[in-house]
Amino acid sequence: MARTTGSDGEKTEAAVREAAVSLVARLGYEAMSMRQLAAEVGVQAGALYRYFPTKEDLLFTLMREHMVGLIEAWEAARPAAADPATRLAAYVKNHVAFHIERRHSTHVSNMELRSLSHDRLTQILRLRTNYEKELRAILRDGAEAGDFIVEDTGLTAMALIQMMTGVIVWFRPGERLSISEVTATYLSMTMRLVGAKAHGATKTYSVAAPSGEQRTL
Amino acid sequence: MARTTGSDGEKTEAAVREAAVSLVARLGYEAMSMRQLAAEVGVQAGALYRYFPTKEDLLFTLMREHMVGLIEAWEAARPAAADPATRLAAYVKNHVAFHIERRHSTHVSNMELRSLSHDRLTQILRLRTNYEKELRAILRDGAEAGDFIVEDTGLTAMALIQMMTGVIVWFRPGERLSISEVTATYLSMTMRLVGAKAHGATKTYSVAAPSGEQRTL
Repeated sequence: MARTTGSDGEKTEAAVREAAVSLVARLGYEAMSMRQLAAEVGVQAGALYRYFPTKEDLLFTLMREHMVGLIEAWEAARPAAADPATRLAAYVKNHVAFHIERRHSTHVSNMELRSLSHDRLTQILRLRTNYEKELRAILRDGAEAGDFIVEDTGLTAMALIQMMTGVIVWFRPGERLSISEVTATYLSMTMRLVGAKAHGATKTYSVAAPSGEQRTL
Repeated sequence: MARTTGSDGEKTEAAVREAAVSLVARLGYEAMSMRQLAAEVGVQAGALYRYFPTKEDLLFTLMREHMVGLIEAWEAARPAAADPATRLAAYVKNHVAFHIERRHSTHVSNMELRSLSHDRLTQILRLRTNYEKELRAILRDGAEAGDFIVEDTGLTAMALIQMMTGVIVWFRPGERLSISEVTATYLSMTMRLVGAKAHGATKTYSVAAPSGEQRTL
């Protein structure tokens, strides 16, 4: 869905989604009203309902787009055939880069799950599971190959995801650390956490910063 | 403030706090009404206001008690004089044990900060900073002694805290893993993450499970 070149309707819908992410992140889903959102976008409240018949439709759309975007980013970043350490490095780099650019949308996705209906919650959780099982497969392959130390695949996958997603809580662009420094540090910590043999020994992982600058750990 | 042996008023106040933690965790602070809370506790709505003049007073009390409880637990658990690895092991053990037992209160403390007034937010964030700086000191001491590999003290402290606090998102007592297994795995992962020399070499860390059972990594 290429929104940027779309019709006026598509542009309005994109503007609504963008404003909604930042309003929900700031006020919370329960506290935000469709009226406030309409005022933020500069349309009549009635116009919103053309795009999102209910407030929950809007929340579900925001959450689904966040997860679909994450999965698509990972599919584009995933190395075709590579050893577990290289795959893990790609997963970490993609996860940190994706979330660091989407602080509000990550907040909404993590904090407002309780406001979804059962069916929609199931859909979002299924997308999450699909994404997380890619990490579990990497960890399992690494452990089976003797490259990683992993006490429990499920626990380690959750611990790594929570450690990395947590970047949005404390990181602000333009402060002490650059995005490439943050990503490089998460990568080093992850490689040590899984006891990657390569770490600090024969192999280095290179992290391309968004600017194209290269960092070698 | 020993509540358990207190007057009827103190007992009611404790019951209000307990019911509020679980209601706010389930519905969200904005969505919860004082009327619902009163019904849950079995008192008149007016009676609540005797203990908590405003809804925000209640939220602030819940968050302050959570952080004060965490700091007190750490003060009781902190080894008097010990090497950085032993201090880090104690910090991890206390952090995981405290949060795993307080899933709702942790949710409230992490998700409802935006509903506090500026002054009260500052008070809660000051308590958090006091707690987190203990971890930063341990990491710094370990790095300076050459016992740990720490690229960035602040980033590593946040990463570890988010990794450990995340336990409340996925862990449910009575399922596949016991609390002592979970704590032991977080401890192993943390020791590797900071490149603790002792890990897997000459030293083992013992983790006392709440039951008194001992586990050695």
